[in-house]
Parts: sequence; C-alpha cells; structure tokens
Amino acid sequence: MANCLSDFPPGPLDKYRKLASFDWKQLSLFLNGEEFLNYRNELYNEILKYSVLLEQTDQTPTLDELRRKTTQKVFALKLVRDSVTARTNCNYADMSFAESSLAYLLDPSASVKRSVTFYMFTSVIASMGTERHRHFIENCLNGEILGCFGLTEIGHGSNTRGMRTTATYDPASRQFILHSPDFQAAKCWVGSLGQTATHGAIFAQLVTPDGIKHGLHAFVVPIRDSKTLVPYPGVKVGDMGEKIGLNGVDNGFIMFDQYHIPRENLLNKIGDVTEDGRYVADITDPNRRHGAALGNLSDGRINITSVNMCYLSKAVTIAIRYAAVRKQFSATEDDEEIPILEYQSHQHRLLPHLATFYAFRTFCKYLLEERDKFQLLLNKKSIDVHRITNTGLELHAISSACKSLAGWYARDAIQECREACAGHGYLKASGLGELRSNQDVCCTYEGENHVLIQQTSNWLLRLWPLVLKGKSVSTPLNTVEFLNRAPQILTSKFTPNSFEELTEPKNILDTFQWLVCYLLKLSFEKYESLKQHSLHSVESKAFWAKNDSQVFYAKSLSIAYIQHLILTAMSDKISKAADFKIKTVLEKLFALFAVTCLEKHIPFLYAGSYASGPTAAVLIQDSILRLCKSIKNDAIALVDVIAPPDFIVNSVLGYSDGQVYKHLEAAMLRAPGALSRPSWWKEITNWKKNIHSKL
Amino acid sequence: MANCLSDFPPGPLDKYRKLASFDWKQLSLFLNGEEFLNYRNELYNEILKYSVLLEQTDQTPTLDELRRKTTQKVFALKLVRDSVTARTNCNYADMSFAESSLAYLLDPSASVKRSVTFYMFTSVIASMGTERHRHFIENCLNGEILGCFGLTEIGHGSNTRGMRTTATYDPASRQFILHSPDFQAAKCWVGSLGQTATHGAIFAQLVTPDGIKHGLHAFVVPIRDSKTLVPYPGVKVGDMGEKIGLNGVDNGFIMFDQYHIPRENLLNKIGDVTEDGRYVADITDPNRRHGAALGNLSDGRINITSVNMCYLSKAVTIAIRYAAVRKQFSATEDDEEIPILEYQSHQHRLLPHLATFYAFRTFCKYLLEERDKFQLLLNKKSIDVHRITNTGLELHAISSACKSLAGWYARDAIQECREACAGHGYLKASGLGELRSNQDVCCTYEGENHVLIQQTSNWLLRLWPLVLKGKSVSTPLNTVEFLNRAPQILTSKFTPNSFEELTEPKNILDTFQWLVCYLLKLSFEKYESLKQHSLHSVESKAFWAKNDSQVFYAKSLSIAYIQHLILTAMSDKISKAADFKIKTVLEKLFALFAVTCLEKHIPFLYAGSYASGPTAAVLIQDSILRLCKSIKNDAIALVDVIAPPDFIVNSVLGYSDGQVYKHLEAAMLRAPGALSRPSWWKEITNWKKNIHSKL
Repeated sequence: MANCLSDFPPGPLDKYRKLASFDWKQLSLFLNGEEFLNYRNELYNEILKYSVLLEQTDQTPTLDELRRKTTQKVFALKLVRDSVTARTNCNYADMSFAESSLAYLLDPSASVKRSVTFYMFTSVIASMGTERHRHFIENCLNGEILGCFGLTEIGHGSNTRGMRTTATYDPASRQFILHSPDFQAAKCWVGSLGQTATHGAIFAQLVTPDGIKHGLHAFVVPIRDSKTLVPYPGVKVGDMGEKIGLNGVDNGFIMFDQYHIPRENLLNKIGDVTEDGRYVADITDPNRRHGAALGNLSDGRINITSVNMCYLSKAVTIAIRYAAVRKQFSATEDDEEIPILEYQSHQHRLLPHLATFYAFRTFCKYLLEERDKFQLLLNKKSIDVHRITNTGLELHAISSACKSLAGWYARDAIQECREACAGHGYLKASGLGELRSNQDVCCTYEGENHVLIQQTSNWLLRLWPLVLKGKSVSTPLNTVEFLNRAPQILTSKFTPNSFEELTEPKNILDTFQWLVCYLLKLSFEKYESLKQHSLHSVESKAFWAKNDSQVFYAKSLSIAYIQHLILTAMSDKISKAADFKIKTVLEKLFALFAVTCLEKHIPFLYAGSYASGPTAAVLIQDSILRLCKSIKNDAIALVDVIAPPDFIVNSVLGYSDGQVYKHLEAAMLRAPGALSRPSWWKEITNWKKNIHSKL
Repeated sequence: MANCLSDFPPGPLDKYRKLASFDWKQLSLFLNGEEFLNYRNELYNEILKYSVLLEQTDQTPTLDELRRKTTQKVFALKLVRDSVTARTNCNYADMSFAESSLAYLLDPSASVKRSVTFYMFTSVIASMGTERHRHFIENCLNGEILGCFGLTEIGHGSNTRGMRTTATYDPASRQFILHSPDFQAAKCWVGSLGQTATHGAIFAQLVTPDGIKHGLHAFVVPIRDSKTLVPYPGVKVGDMGEKIGLNGVDNGFIMFDQYHIPRENLLNKIGDVTEDGRYVADITDPNRRHGAALGNLSDGRINITSVNMCYLSKAVTIAIRYAAVRKQFSATEDDEEIPILEYQSHQHRLLPHLATFYAFRTFCKYLLEERDKFQLLLNKKSIDVHRITNTGLELHAISSACKSLAGWYARDAIQECREACAGHGYLKASGLGELRSNQDVCCTYEGENHVLIQQTSNWLLRLWPLVLKGKSVSTPLNTVEFLNRAPQILTSKFTPNSFEELTEPKNILDTFQWLVCYLLKLSFEKYESLKQHSLHSVESKAFWAKNDSQVFYAKSLSIAYIQHLILTAMSDKISKAADFKIKTVLEKLFALFAVTCLEKHIPFLYAGSYASGPTAAVLIQDSILRLCKSIKNDAIALVDVIAPPDFIVNSVLGYSDGQVYKHLEAAMLRAPGALSRPSWWKEITNWKKNIHSKL
C-alpha cells in the first residue's frame, strides 16, 4: 500500500537530504498529526484506484476533450471522497486540508467542478433552505441532478446589492418568475453551468406582487433536463468560453426570459412568500437579511486559503528541488560547479516562500478547526444568537484577510519559482505555468482580494471606538485581545539590537501588535478626518472617506492583523514541540516568515516613530539573509515534508528522485513529432518565394 | 489610409476623454516625434495588407496549426519590414520602437521567430564573421536559408564559460568536428530550430588538434537541407515541445555526433584556425576573447526593454479603459454607480504602471539612439578602441539593468491589470493571459534577470575605487558624472517637507543620486568586508564575497542606478515641452514613477540615515496617492496616446470604443458550441450511475 511517508529514491538530492538537521518524517508527524496523515494516505490510495485520475498528458488537449475528461474525473473524485469518508474517521480540518493537498493539486479543474456540482449547491440549500428542499440535496449527492451556484452577474460582482436578476412572485400560477432584464444582468461565472449543471442555487431580487423588492434570495432553479441535458425553454444558458486557467471547468452564463419556477423553490429560511404573495421573514432589517443571505461564504474562503497554500507547496517543491540539482558557475576554474541553491540571491528568492507555507500550515489547521466549531455552534439545539453572530463576523474578518493574503502569497511564490527555474521553468513540462494559470483566479473569485480585504479592516475599525472609550474589547475567537493594551503598546518602541533579539518570538509578536494598533489608530483617524473635511454630500461622506483611506491605511491594517494571527498560531504550535531539532528549524521558519513580512512594513515602523535611526531597517534586512542561509541545508528536507506525491508533482524539474535532466530528456523525446519535419513543410517553399520575388 | 492618430468612436469613454487636461494628439507628437509617427503609420498600413496578419481567433489552435500559422506570419512580417524600410526614411531608434509597438504586440511569437530567423543569425555573422561569410547573410535575407542562434545548453545557461559542445579542428579533412558529449551539452532553447531552421550560428568550444581549448567561438552550422527540411546526418535536432507561452516559436535542441563542417564556417573575426590547425587571434587574452564573442548581446537586451514596455502599454490600455467603463457601488442608494477608476485603491493599482510606460518611453528612445551611435562608432574607419570598449561596457551596464527592470515592471503591470479586471480579466478574451504568458520569458531569456543585473553593479563597483582615491570618474555616456560629487552627496539629507518639495524634479534626482552613492559605497564595503573575513579559500574569497553581497546591496544598487538614468532622460525631455498642459501632465507622471520607485527604497533612506523621523515615509506614501488622484481624469487620454490600434489591442475589455459589454457578449456567443450540449453528454449518464450504484 502506497504511503505518503515512504522513503525517496536515491539520487542527486541525497547530498542535501543528508545535510538536514532533523528527521523529516518526525516533522511531518508533528506538523500534520497522525489523523491527517492517515486520512491523506487513505485518500491517496483511493485515488490510485481510478485510472482516469492517473492519466497524464504532456500535450494540451482540445477544450472539448479537456471538458469531457474533467467531467469524468469529477465523478471519480466524488466516489473517492465518498469511499474514504465512509471508512475513515477524520475531523473536518484534516479532511479538508488533505483534499486540498491531493485532489486540488492533482486536478484543480476537476476539484473545483466537483465542489460546485456536489457541495456548494447542497451547502447553500442546507443553510438557507428548509425541510421541503431536502430532496434536492439527496438527489444531488446521489448524482441524479448536478448542481451549481449562481450569484455574480455580468455587470455586478463585488457589489452584490446591485444584482438585477428578479424573481417576481405570481400569485395566479403560485410561481416565481425569474427574469434577466438584459445581458449585463445575466448570471455568469457559474462553475459547471456552461455544459452540465441541471439545477442551480441562483440568487435573485425577490419581488412581491405589490412591486416591493425584498433583496437577494436564493432559489433552486431547474436549468436542464437531467436525462438529456437539454436546457428548458425560458433559459438561455451557455458556456463562457476559454479562460486563462481552470479550463476544465465549464463556467457558464444564464439569462432568464420570464422563466417560471415553483414557489417552493425559494430557499425560505430567512424569508418566505405566502401563497397569496405576502413576504414574511424573521429578520426584518433588509441589511441583516442581505448579510444572512451571503453569510455562508466564509467557508469557501477558508478552503481557498488552504488550496492556495497547497499550490504554493507544489511550486516551492519544484523550484527548490531544481535549485539543489541545477549547478551553475564555480568559485574557481578547478572547482566543481555549485548548486544554485547555494547562492544568496537564489535562497532569498525561494526560502521565504517555503517559510510562508509552514506558517500557514498551522494557521490553516487552526482556522479549519474554528470553522468546524462554528458549524457545531450553528447546529446546536439551543441557539446563542449573539455568540453565533459575533463568531460569524470574526470568522468573516479572518477569512476575508487570509483568503486574500494566501492568494497573493501563492501568486508571488509561483511566479518567483517559475523565474527561478529560468529557461526550463518556462517549459510546460515544468508544471509551473499551469499552476500559475489555475491559481491566479484565487485572487478574484469568492471576493476580489482588494475589495474583500476591506471587510477585515471594517471589522477592526468598529472595535477602535471601544478602545478610545477605555472599554474592554472581547471577541469570540480572541484574535485582538491585545487591543486592550493599545495605549501601552502604542507608546512602545522597537528595541531589538541584534539578530537574536529581533527574531525572538515574543519580540516579533510585540512588533506586529504595535503595527496593528498603530495602523488601526491611523486608519480610524484618517477616516474620521477625511469624513470631516469632505467636500462630498452629507450622505456620501462616509462612503468616500472609507474608500480614500484604503491604500497604506486600512489595507495594511488588515494584512498586519492576519499576519499577527498566523504568527500567533505558529508560535503556539512551536511551543508544543518536544524535539529540540524540530523546534529549532520551525523557529527559523517562523522568524523568516515574520521578518519577510516585517520588511514590507518598514515604512510604517518609521512613519509611526516606532523605529528611529538606522538599526531597524538594517537589522531586518540582514536577518532575512542570515535566516535564508541557515535554512538552506534543511531546504530539501523541509520540501520533502510538504511535497505532494510524485505523480501529483508532475514536473520534470520537481520529482523526488531529483533526476531533472533524465526527466527533461524523456519528456522532450516522447512528444509526438518532436524529431519530425512539420506536415506543412512544403508550404514554406511558397512563403520563401514571396520574399525572393520582392527583392 | 489608416492613421494611428485618428479619432476614437464615441462611447462610454467619452466622459473621461472630455475631462482630459491636454490634447492627446499633441502629447503623442511631442513624445514620439513626427518621424516615429510616420514610420509607425507606414508600418501599420503595410500590416493591414496581409490577411494572414489580421487573422484572429477566439479559440486556442492546436500546437501544429499555431506553428504553421506563425511561420507563415514570419514571412509576411519580413515582407512588411522590407517594404516599409525600402520606402521610408527612419532612424533606428524610431524604427525599432515602432516594431515593438506594432509587430510584437500583434504577434509576439511571429515577431520573435522573424527576429531569430532573419536578424539575429545575420547580425552574429555580420559582427563576428568576415567577408567569406557574406553569402550566408545574403541567402538568409532573401529567404533561401533560415537562420537561428544557439548558445544555451541544457546544463548551462548563465554560465556561458561552462558550455560543453566542442568544435575540434581536424587538419586531415580541414573541417571542424562538432560534438555534444551528452544530453546536458545539447544546445537548447534555440528559437526556430525545433522545426524550420536550416542553418545556425552555433557557439562551441574551439579545440585545436593539440587539444588546447580556445574558448567559445561561433560557427555557421548547416542543420537541415533547405529544400526538404530534412536534418543532415550527424545532428539530432528536435522540438522542445510546449511552453508556457510563445508557443508559435519552435524552440529546439540539437546534439552533434562528430558532425563535420567546413573550416571556413568558423566566424573568424576574433580568432581563426589555419589550415594546418594553428590558432591565431588578435586578442590574446582568453577572457577578453570571451567578452568579444558575447559582447554583441546588448542589442537584444535593448530591444527586449522596448518590447516589455509595449507589452505593458497593452496591459494598461485594457485595464484602464475597463476601469473607466466598469461601474460598481454607489455612494448612496439613490446615486448612480461609480466607475472603478474613481476608487483610490484601483487608481493605486493601475496608474503607477501607466507612469512607468511614460518614463521608459523617453528612456528607450534615448537608449536606442545611443545604441545607434555606438553602431556608427563601430563602423567608422578609424577605430578608437578605448572609446569603443568603454562605450560597450557602459551600454552593457545600462542594458543589463534596464532589460531586467523592464521585465519585472511589465510582469507586475500585466499581473495587476489581470487582477484589476477581476473575473472578466480571467477570460481568454481579455487578452491578458496570453500577454502574461508571452511576456514572462523576458525575465529569463537573453540573461536571467537576477544574474544579468549583476553586470551593472559590477561595472559600478569598479568605479568606486576612483572615487575613494579622489580621481575623476568619466564614462562615455556620462551616466554617473555625479559620482564626482559623491562625498558631498553622501553627507546630504532628505529635506523635502511638502508634496511640492518632494516631487520637484531636482529633489527627486538628488535623492536618487544619494541612493546610488550610498548603495555603491555600501555594496563595495560589504564586498570588501566579506572578502576579508571570508572562511573560503584564498582563490574563492572574491567569488563568494560577490555573491553574498547581492541581495539588499548590489542588486538594489543596479536598480537605483537605472532608475536615476530613466528619470534623468524623462526630466530632460520634459524640460523641452513648450505646451504648459503637456508639461504639467508629464511632470505628474514623472513624479508618480519616481515616488513609486522611492517607496521601495524607504528602508535604505533610513538605513543610510538620509532620512530620520517620520516625514520621509509619510510624505512618499501620501504623494503617491495624491498623484494618482490628480492623474485619474487624464488616465484615458494618456492611454489613448500609448494604446495600440484596436485590432492589436484585441481584447473585449480594452477597445477604444469602450463598449465592453457588447464585445463581451459577442465573444461569448460566437464561440463554437457555446449554447450546445456537449457531444459526450450521454457518457455522463454512465458516470452518474457509478455514483448511484455505490450508495
């Protein structure tokens, strides 16, 4: 039986493997835990049973063939999960991260499509529907109907309130009539809608017969006949065409032309319409209803955070293994050439990204567990509304920032890895191009990063008046407890005078707490001042003040807040390490992630007079280099801990045997026609003649 | 006759066009000059004559079809250039930038392939060959033979001295015998070699019969029969397969198996072998010979700088026009929605990249002109060796930094534009994905950026001892004249106290001169100190000291040096603006580019005690936002100045009519099968059954 902790084949990576200061299997066990490793092994072995999941091709297939293959894989992946979860006990956090680290890396398109087809559709129904909708969930999970999730319209994405698809209740027919006034109101970017979905969870403006709009509500909308896949009359549904990446997913658009659906298809947990057309809801405030309708999206963002980190892990696996094998230049003419991993510049390009993964690994586990607890809270009989609301808001603040940051980190890591593998990294066979194309959209979907991250600062800004009034700040997840010490923190100064002092976890966390307090105070004051001196109308002052205090203020605040939380989670984890060697290497990774983040904040340290004189800037920069150098010999073992299995790495530069040139040669030679004359060689003669005749 | 300065169709962009503070045609004339505009118009009109160059498809073709089409375009583009240059007088600088702004944007693959097939091959022969090689140039330019250029090997790229292909002279046959000892010594990444080249300018270690190696020399190597395209026996030549981008180019590899070529095919300007096998050369120092053999590469880097900026211009055209049309959110419920260009966050994402183009536009013209002058110097009868050498070295230092920086800037701009167009930017029809995939390799080829940029700091570091000794620093292009004032500059301080003071050109240039002096001094001292305290062997101390002083030191030095030069060129240009409105908007762009660069250098301002107290950091950040805001209303007109013609923009989001949604709808609906059931719909039933049967 295959095992994710099995030994690696001997080869060019041995040298670095022997240099490692710790046992990689022990680190894996400490970091991941037994339950995760078991579950991942089960998942891995189950995947190996499906030949369709093991197919690999060097050549880009046609869009149609890619779609067909992806759809087939969707069903295989569904069977894989069903089978593993049926026989394996595993907590949500481990299960979820294992899926990200295997299924998402194996085939991002198929994993995304599986997710929307089976889980996103049913999860919306589960959270917003009632007993009368249970059959949709059952039929979807047993494969009879294929779901999708539709919110975004051509003309509206981030501004969900601006959605223009209407669902008008018609008492005569006791049906809702869905309608798209024009192309800009077409639902779009709906995964799986382009070619295969039979039913959608579609959001539309609910309108009662009296013409009153009640805001966005979700409806189960039949789209295609589930036997024939022929669309129903009244819907114009199609595929959005090729994208930059994730082309296996058929993102679709749909327009409704006075399209009738049963009244019962309204997911009626937050609001309902009676048979005669009256709107009834527990929540009477439309804003809170809007929040409730879309409040379910934290889950997706938490998952995207994990997926991004797994994308990142694949990129650094490829680039660091390649850096250990690739040699270039020698110190003197007689010396051997040197692996490029030995160069400072190369270490600095790659190792901070490796540290990022380790920092996020612990954080993801923490966050997935918190999300799991929240789900338990929601399912409890006795509902503590206050606690649920506040936990939901804090999770929303956390997930909005970490989803954005993870997206940017993964994006930058993949790009740097691509460039760090230089020419050979530009080959399709390096795997880095597709990784980038598939990852890229993580910065956009489930909330455009720059817009989404404002949710975090908004939440923090609402806490600041408490601090100003000297009131206690207390949040369910306790992520900003330190705000209660804000006055003292704000008068503190940057004190480290040495590498050791700077990288001491306590000092690191102190610095980030100062950053959060400073940026929160600054953003709040900027906002208030802009509002006060605004030339905009009274009604719009707050709107513009908020927007004009984003760059260098609120955005930096959100980033510092989430970095502090990530560092806290990692620091907690490290304190539990019994093995000194493991503790040591994790402390280095913690410090490298921290100082790399801190480097970007240097302007704030000075702008806020936390630092003065040259020490802080110099110390931070030099510490980064020192840490890179001291992690370098452990880099391959650290990669071995986080690397996916070889057939998932699927890169000639990144296999665990390190036989870069052999894989490269094999890939080049097995390409069809690699050594042949092109079939159109005769045409060249004509083209050449044109040039000759013009001379 | 089409004209690049014709008016734009009315539409959603009118609002911003009317807001512009200046006349865009006048700015275009001032920036580009009449000669450039005329030449570009001629080129544009000539392109329009070739239907193959006007073909556009929404769908990704197969690799084979793409290759065929690209090759056809190569010949068409060759005819276009021949025809235009035959009838139009134009200086090299304008001609070259016009090519970048039209041909490279129209089809990067075909342009790259044209370049290597016809011009790179012949230019190597022209500069390194002698009279006996003239026929190769003629036969290539008239299309009888198709060239390529081979230097890189599988195992060696940046380290050109490590190349292992040998060319051993055999006096018996009076031939050179080319040989590749193994796959790692295969020449690779040779553009056009994969499928079509008939002859290559190939670099190999020249070995005389006495076994002595004389270093890299270039040879004209016949590869395929020019009539049949069948490879000659003794070469194993093939295609490297799919890449991340530029897939129209057939990058190839070649291995030689004791392959004989005539003695005369050695390009013998720097060294020759007599019939009986003696090596003769004017330059006796092998290091200088190595330099002479590869000294010709500045040209390519200067061109890549321009091409990168044209890629950038296309990206900002698309994203800024989209930002002016795309509306999202309103300040109050009753207000209209607001174009996203109005948001601070969005301005900050896009406008600095727009400023980058303007800064580089003037610099590219300056650099292309200097390169042209250098060519004249080389062709002069009376050769001033000292001047040629020093000019060559300075051009090498400049081009090594600007090629790298332009690559990074274009990469970041394209990525930010992709994300700033959010979901719709992820469509293939946005054009941003292909732009990114094609641009990406600019960071790698013709010198991996991180390795290449060391050439610049190396050149600067050699000047510092002169400063230390109080000697005068004088270089042919006068780019570091200010080093003569280094002692005073190093004692100066950051003095601006207001936006006006900070953005005053003189103060900007002063700050960058301080940065260059400081980083040069720092890098020199770091290098010396590392060398002194090194634990490495005596022979390798210098090597490791150099490598360990790159990050935060030498690399930052190269960047600051080239930024100063770019700013100087722009500042000179602005001083010539007679029109006050044009002067004003260019000053803003100058300042925005400058402060955006400066922001990244803030740590150095403090580390070097140039700045102290919070002012510098706060002022630089706030100035960026202030400049973005003040440029915003001019953004569309500024884009109109630099935008390629619509059929070259070729993006549903970026056409000059601003009809984003109409183009989007049309593109989605015209895709084959967009509204149809997939051909494999019946298979889904089987896949569904598998799930059902497992339940």
